[in-house]
Amino acid sequence: MIVPIEPVPAPPKRYDIIIDTLPPLRFEVPVAIVTNPTVARLHLKRVLERIEASKVEVFEVPDGEEYKTIDTVLSILDRLFAARFDRSSLLIALGGGVIGDMTGFAASIYQRGIGFVQIPTTLLAQVDASVGGKTGVNTRWGKNLIGAFYQPEAVYIDPDFLSTLPKREYAAGIAEVIKMAVMFDREFFDFLEGHDLFERSSVVRMIARSVELKAEVVNQDEKERGLRAVLNYGHTFAHVIENETGYGRYLHGEAVAIGMVMANELAVELGLLGRAEADRIRALLERYGLPVRYRVEDPEAFYEHFFLDKKTAGGKVKFILPGGSIGTHTMRDDVDPDLVRRVLARFGG
Amino acid sequence: MIVPIEPVPAPPKRYDIIIDTLPPLRFEVPVAIVTNPTVARLHLKRVLERIEASKVEVFEVPDGEEYKTIDTVLSILDRLFAARFDRSSLLIALGGGVIGDMTGFAASIYQRGIGFVQIPTTLLAQVDASVGGKTGVNTRWGKNLIGAFYQPEAVYIDPDFLSTLPKREYAAGIAEVIKMAVMFDREFFDFLEGHDLFERSSVVRMIARSVELKAEVVNQDEKERGLRAVLNYGHTFAHVIENETGYGRYLHGEAVAIGMVMANELAVELGLLGRAEADRIRALLERYGLPVRYRVEDPEAFYEHFFLDKKTAGGKVKFILPGGSIGTHTMRDDVDPDLVRRVLARFGG
Repeated sequence: MIVPIEPVPAPPKRYDIIIDTLPPLRFEVPVAIVTNPTVARLHLKRVLERIEASKVEVFEVPDGEEYKTIDTVLSILDRLFAARFDRSSLLIALGGGVIGDMTGFAASIYQRGIGFVQIPTTLLAQVDASVGGKTGVNTRWGKNLIGAFYQPEAVYIDPDFLSTLPKREYAAGIAEVIKMAVMFDREFFDFLEGHDLFERSSVVRMIARSVELKAEVVNQDEKERGLRAVLNYGHTFAHVIENETGYGRYLHGEAVAIGMVMANELAVELGLLGRAEADRIRALLERYGLPVRYRVEDPEAFYEHFFLDKKTAGGKVKFILPGGSIGTHTMRDDVDPDLVRRVLARFGG
Repeated sequence: MIVPIEPVPAPPKRYDIIIDTLPPLRFEVPVAIVTNPTVARLHLKRVLERIEASKVEVFEVPDGEEYKTIDTVLSILDRLFAARFDRSSLLIALGGGVIGDMTGFAASIYQRGIGFVQIPTTLLAQVDASVGGKTGVNTRWGKNLIGAFYQPEAVYIDPDFLSTLPKREYAAGIAEVIKMAVMFDREFFDFLEGHDLFERSSVVRMIARSVELKAEVVNQDEKERGLRAVLNYGHTFAHVIENETGYGRYLHGEAVAIGMVMANELAVELGLLGRAEADRIRALLERYGLPVRYRVEDPEAFYEHFFLDKKTAGGKVKFILPGGSIGTHTMRDDVDPDLVRRVLARFGG
């Protein structure tokens, strides 16, 4: 006997990304703001002034990628239980990508799922991490290997937060912006090349276009079965670099910058990108002080590491590469491992 | 500026529940069977003979509700990483509800979600836990408080597994069957009263009808926003009992049996169930040796405990009760706490 389970179709979750100065927010439910001491010191007062709720708690977690662990997430859950937060409650992620990823993951598993709102305070989180519902934590086996796809109720992107952001972190965000341009939009790449991305008017345009591009991708492929994989351009390499360096040496965007240069070198070898265009991308990254070099001590070990990546389905490494020029993309899972190792070996320290 | 995120609608996940002798199963991907030593000893050989996959691993976890913890889930994830399982991999839950809940939860967060299949080996898991996609673990704050809604790829219910099930565990499963009948189907209740539920032909009919009823509910309310809450008849009380007794004294179904009797006593007080019908339900539970008594040491503390339950939204306790007679249901969130405490105080040890 067969009993089919066929849930009545529900409309997919929709939500808005609001790019503007943070408006007053009013919730009828208990709210917990998850943040870290650095962000709290800079922004918590202003945010608290704008939030009204039946109860407001603030949970601080340690600052830094090395604390993006299941233990930190469990500590958030424990504080929610202790404060008697029920299933109607809401989490607010106030901080960068680390805070957003952990808060979203905590929301996804607390009592089988409660709502959460993103208030990203770094450029990286604003243009990338806060959009698309990827949540999770790092493990000793690699980055973001435990987590969930879980959509927020809303994302509030306030460019004013960026005024206190260290230049290095700002540049790390620009790396992801450049990624979007190289994969999807040549005109946008030209815009990035032609403008000072520290100027307020450029900043807003840069954020808006990045978010738009990412939203288009995510709308078509929420669970990363196809198109969304393109967003991993540079990341396949970056994850190994971050893992090899213990997540402490490079900011994520910095590792992505190196990863894009690695991917581009491979693309040049495969005839998927002209040398001149690869150099343009590299130059734009360098203009913002992003790293473009990395000493690969052991190309064999580096290659082996790819197989711990979530994207390495069925034992094949999927390389996301430019698809012939800037503004286009392709996926290749048939690249000769020897070629990859040769390209890696060329990378100097 | 507002960027809406509106994912392209995807059809809801559908899957089949197959009630039959376990058929040969063939997977093109790596498979890990999660089970415990008791089930492995009894059934693993037979299951392994029926499974073909590109790779088959067996992960044993300790037997018992007290090991239904995040630590056990993390140990499953760790073994998956160590065995280099990628996102195409599949978990198979071979065991009772504890194994199913933990395996499903592990599948839901491993690399942001991999597939899983349920092969429930206890009556409780066959008629209840394996259907509907609730996964999770217990915490020191209560039962199933960390978890996810996550649907399996398929559920294989093989009544042959029940031949080795201890009578006490079998009875615990019958408690959930009686629950379904009391809430939804008076004719089914009459059937249960009129048959020996240890006889093979009754068993298959009992499983099939329970699964059908549960499937109907889950199809209409996957995420427990409305109708699905009816399945918690008896559970609001049972969760407190299990928590007070440290999850060691009663099987889940036994606690549910007590919980239903408690709910019925409340329902009688509220005029929602006749005394005679309450006695019929109690008698049917007792016929299978299920407990129907519990000493409530401190009714005040017992009542307070309700507020840790996921179902206690907005500070109100939602009681699921018969809706006037056997085969009907209602939800009441306006019950006088004093009445509840009086009913609890009446319960003897």
